[in-house]
Amino acid sequence: MLSNPKTELAALVERRQPGYSLEAPFYVSPDVFQADLDLIFGRHWIFVGVEPDVPEPGDAVVVDIGRNSVVIVRGDDNEVRAFHNVCRHRGARLVLEEKTTVGNLVCRYHSWTYDLEGNLIHAPHMGESFKPSCHGLKPVHLKSLEGLLFICLADEPPADFDDMAKVMAPYIAPHRLRDTKIAYQADLIEPGNWKLTMENNRECYHCAPNHPELTVPLFAYGFGYAPDEMAPEEIEAAKAHDRATEEKHRQWEACGLPSALVEHLDDRVTGFRTMRLMLDGAGESHTMDTTVACRKLLGDITDKAIGGLHFWTQPNSWHHFMSDHIVTFSAIPLDEGRTLVRTKWLVHKDAVEGVDYDLENLTSVWKVTNQQDSDLVGYCQQGAQSPAYAPGPYSPYTEGLVEAFCNWYIGRLRAGLEG
Amino acid sequence: MLSNPKTELAALVERRQPGYSLEAPFYVSPDVFQADLDLIFGRHWIFVGVEPDVPEPGDAVVVDIGRNSVVIVRGDDNEVRAFHNVCRHRGARLVLEEKTTVGNLVCRYHSWTYDLEGNLIHAPHMGESFKPSCHGLKPVHLKSLEGLLFICLADEPPADFDDMAKVMAPYIAPHRLRDTKIAYQADLIEPGNWKLTMENNRECYHCAPNHPELTVPLFAYGFGYAPDEMAPEEIEAAKAHDRATEEKHRQWEACGLPSALVEHLDDRVTGFRTMRLMLDGAGESHTMDTTVACRKLLGDITDKAIGGLHFWTQPNSWHHFMSDHIVTFSAIPLDEGRTLVRTKWLVHKDAVEGVDYDLENLTSVWKVTNQQDSDLVGYCQQGAQSPAYAPGPYSPYTEGLVEAFCNWYIGRLRAGLEG
Amino acid sequence: MLSNPKTELAALVERRQPGYSLEAPFYVSPDVFQADLDLIFGRHWIFVGVEPDVPEPGDAVVVDIGRNSVVIVRGDDNEVRAFHNVCRHRGARLVLEEKTTVGNLVCRYHSWTYDLEGNLIHAPHMGESFKPSCHGLKPVHLKSLEGLLFICLADEPPADFDDMAKVMAPYIAPHRLRDTKIAYQADLIEPGNWKLTMENNRECYHCAPNHPELTVPLFAYGFGYAPDEMAPEEIEAAKAHDRATEEKHRQWEACGLPSALVEHLDDRVTGFRTMRLMLDGAGESHTMDTTVACRKLLGDITDKAIGGLHFWTQPNSWHHFMSDHIVTFSAIPLDEGRTLVRTKWLVHKDAVEGVDYDLENLTSVWKVTNQQDSDLVGYCQQGAQSPAYAPGPYSPYTEGLVEAFCNWYIGRLRAGLEG
Repeated sequence: MLSNPKTELAALVERRQPGYSLEAPFYVSPDVFQADLDLIFGRHWIFVGVEPDVPEPGDAVVVDIGRNSVVIVRGDDNEVRAFHNVCRHRGARLVLEEKTTVGNLVCRYHSWTYDLEGNLIHAPHMGESFKPSCHGLKPVHLKSLEGLLFICLADEPPADFDDMAKVMAPYIAPHRLRDTKIAYQADLIEPGNWKLTMENNRECYHCAPNHPELTVPLFAYGFGYAPDEMAPEEIEAAKAHDRATEEKHRQWEACGLPSALVEHLDDRVTGFRTMRLMLDGAGESHTMDTTVACRKLLGDITDKAIGGLHFWTQPNSWHHFMSDHIVTFSAIPLDEGRTLVRTKWLVHKDAVEGVDYDLENLTSVWKVTNQQDSDLVGYCQQGAQSPAYAPGPYSPYTEGLVEAFCNWYIGRLRAGLEG
Repeated sequence: MLSNPKTELAALVERRQPGYSLEAPFYVSPDVFQADLDLIFGRHWIFVGVEPDVPEPGDAVVVDIGRNSVVIVRGDDNEVRAFHNVCRHRGARLVLEEKTTVGNLVCRYHSWTYDLEGNLIHAPHMGESFKPSCHGLKPVHLKSLEGLLFICLADEPPADFDDMAKVMAPYIAPHRLRDTKIAYQADLIEPGNWKLTMENNRECYHCAPNHPELTVPLFAYGFGYAPDEMAPEEIEAAKAHDRATEEKHRQWEACGLPSALVEHLDDRVTGFRTMRLMLDGAGESHTMDTTVACRKLLGDITDKAIGGLHFWTQPNSWHHFMSDHIVTFSAIPLDEGRTLVRTKWLVHKDAVEGVDYDLENLTSVWKVTNQQDSDLVGYCQQGAQSPAYAPGPYSPYTEGLVEAFCNWYIGRLRAGLEG
Repeated sequence: MLSNPKTELAALVERRQPGYSLEAPFYVSPDVFQADLDLIFGRHWIFVGVEPDVPEPGDAVVVDIGRNSVVIVRGDDNEVRAFHNVCRHRGARLVLEEKTTVGNLVCRYHSWTYDLEGNLIHAPHMGESFKPSCHGLKPVHLKSLEGLLFICLADEPPADFDDMAKVMAPYIAPHRLRDTKIAYQADLIEPGNWKLTMENNRECYHCAPNHPELTVPLFAYGFGYAPDEMAPEEIEAAKAHDRATEEKHRQWEACGLPSALVEHLDDRVTGFRTMRLMLDGAGESHTMDTTVACRKLLGDITDKAIGGLHFWTQPNSWHHFMSDHIVTFSAIPLDEGRTLVRTKWLVHKDAVEGVDYDLENLTSVWKVTNQQDSDLVGYCQQGAQSPAYAPGPYSPYTEGLVEAFCNWYIGRLRAGLEG
């Protein structure tokens, strides 16, 4: 542990060397982890789920972030709201199940009862001077970006979420996430710090040696490369890929599918990045054979081969939108050495399993890829524990977006320590 | 953790708001837990067992409280004594089993041997200058209240134990605990702070929604109620219940069974409460059908329907004495989020299982009730971990004895911090 | 935890009472444990394995000490080297298996590749300004004492290792450890502090009551005794045993087997002790029937009955060399309450299992003895956790070498705190 957490954390932040991985305490120190919970996960917009998690009034889902438990519930007015999952009487956890459907939110302990807007509507034996209106559930900020649900635990959430939403809505809207259902959800606990999970997600330098399945639909040229290490014919192929991407972007945008790169990973509080990527083979989907996994396409999409739109948010999510399905990922820190990665596969709400899609075919690429990434994250966590660990250099050609993640993180810690 | 434990604990104690549950650190902080072990469990009389745990000379039982291990052993003179369970040579734990019978207390490591009064009587190869008399087992204070065993780990235990014993002996004596045997013992680890276990025990506001079995023998009117929320006929029924209780108390006391309420929960160092309660139905016992579980009654008792005498002690026990059996409970803190609840069911020492009593019938109400309480305690522990937790108001009608527990606890912490 | 670790540790060191076991924090405090890792295991020569762990070029074995992971690998030049097991790029653990054989050391994450001398020979996409020569694996000091492998994690290891090696080589050489193979390895996690493991190893006062198997080949007179507690005939037998030992030493030394006691347990940085002990019965080996377990003898040894050469090193090893096999032991601290004891049984490299030796017969005495010791260590760890624990007196006749271990330990801590 750090002997003087705040001072030492500030020193760690100040001496961070650009272009290099972070110092070991960022990955292994419980004190830095606590600061991450407070200053990063406590003050930014955190992706936690999708509207199809709570499709009907009374549907509720519980999300735990650090020591916070938050219940997200759709009201009778069809609004989705978030509340701290703590009874205002004796403090019992209110909703115990990860997913449930309720009429009201009733505490099991003494039957205190809250409606779906968080108002206390029943509390027996409390006497005449007791004011139910002072004992409603504590609300948590929640925003839906075309069906992607983000919460913010701070009293005053970052205001630039709406700027991101304005940019992103046209990209996402054609996939009509609100009209999907969750075909499958997988929770994986990676044996490493959440930043190793995110850093791993932000480069594909590791893909060729580690992801034989994911590299089927993905073009290697998108991963970056050192030009001086490539043969002239490889460089020519890479340039051809770039030209093809530009051409595709023109075609897709003409059809109402915004596709061009937007990158604000480290120049905004609510950092994000998006681009529609061409896919290899049939060019349709993240499947083993690169064709669609669900024959019922999303929204009004009619062209199967519209590649994969990726959308990344700082600090904790990434998503892939294709013509037939959507995959969303959230990384939730559990402790300094463990991170929950929650993956949801969404298909058209009217698609029928076994008829329109096969669950194994839909999920296999990312299930196996997640496990491979989890192993890699674990090796890094093990390494960072060694006193011999020292920050190593990022490749300027293949790890620039890892650097952008670290820049954002360090910048936000600095702002938090000053603020 | 608290950054300055002693100062912060004192501040927490000083700002405790009467009528409200405790602030979160009291339930979740390892530092407060350590203070609880030192100032509460290290300085007060702790209920740990019963004389029938060690019925014969050489019978020993081991009880662990925090980092202390204590062996309670009946000597050849029939006296029950307690010692620290640590060899004076290399410090090995002396008695490993929870219950055993020994001739002497022999350390496995190098065969150092102590008699049942703690004297070192054998220590080979130590040389002529070694003084066995300086290396006897360290004693622990022990008192038996009519067979209920209390220990105190402090050098100078609270002197008012004897006052409590003087009051309580006439209540307990007719049940002749020393002439019982332990029919069954159940250990349950509740997933919450020990104070949540105790607070849960000190109110029955939660009984109606959670304890369908326990509420069979118990009268709901005993749990407290807000008069303004009750119908006139309910209030009349409650008053009738109070009058019936007074009448029963007169009858029972006339038969040599002290029954009236004595309540010193927060005005003494050794806080306690007792009262003989009427039971519902047949009025005999805490069983599913409210009749006796053991047909051999305790002591000289001949009337089955003498209700249930409850006896509570601060900080860690509660007991129910009926005509046919006794149930004793101790709560032992394991860490800030786990508490051992040990329950013993006692019947007449000559009662024969399968003939005089059925074990399942004897134990079923409290086994299932303990598990229900354990779940509730767990929900509160989960809730207290949330940064959104805030102390909530106790019902003035149903949670006054929880408030008394908290008052005692806060008062004893304050005394300990000053002392 | 200690509230001011460095000051309190220094105070603990200064007030250590000679002739008594250590104060409780030395066994139970995480802060003292961290100091042990830093000042003892981080600055001294630690026994970690044997050359037969890596018999061929490319053979590698991984050893973890505290948060350090070290890979020991034999190079193509037949030299054995040790490196920190951390990739210099993103810090991933390099070798994951405990034992493996490799051509080069390749990181799974991004395929960075090191040769067996630790040089980085492949790192794609890093650009022209990247200097591979600055990113080789970090070396760890390693020495082989006739095949026993010791590493030192400090930049400047203790220089007196070579003095020990000079004394010890003639004792060990006849057993030709480099020409053995590992017949069996057993890892046992003892539930106690590593110093309790070592203290237990440094006396046989506990052998008679605890080790019925080990005491078959060992003479009880070697364990020490208080003369005033023994019968005249016992004292005479002990003296006869001493004379027989002297006679044996003369015979063995005449045959080129150094045998006399050398004891530098607490008067050197690299403390050690050796002596060749007579064995009971057939006098050949640590087996249930005291005869050799392997009919193919070690090196050029022809006499089966050459007793057992023991070799102890501070802080963490002990070894037994017999005519037919060698047993090596290392104790590696895992946390303040858990210690890995790794035992290896070595036989002639050409011995054939099932023909020359039976594995069960070879290993049974020490397997069962290790488990017995593990239990004893656990009882002491439990005892040391009690606030009632106080240092107890060592027997001047049977625990002098435990005292020597504690003296060495306290002296090295003092030097480390000053240094």
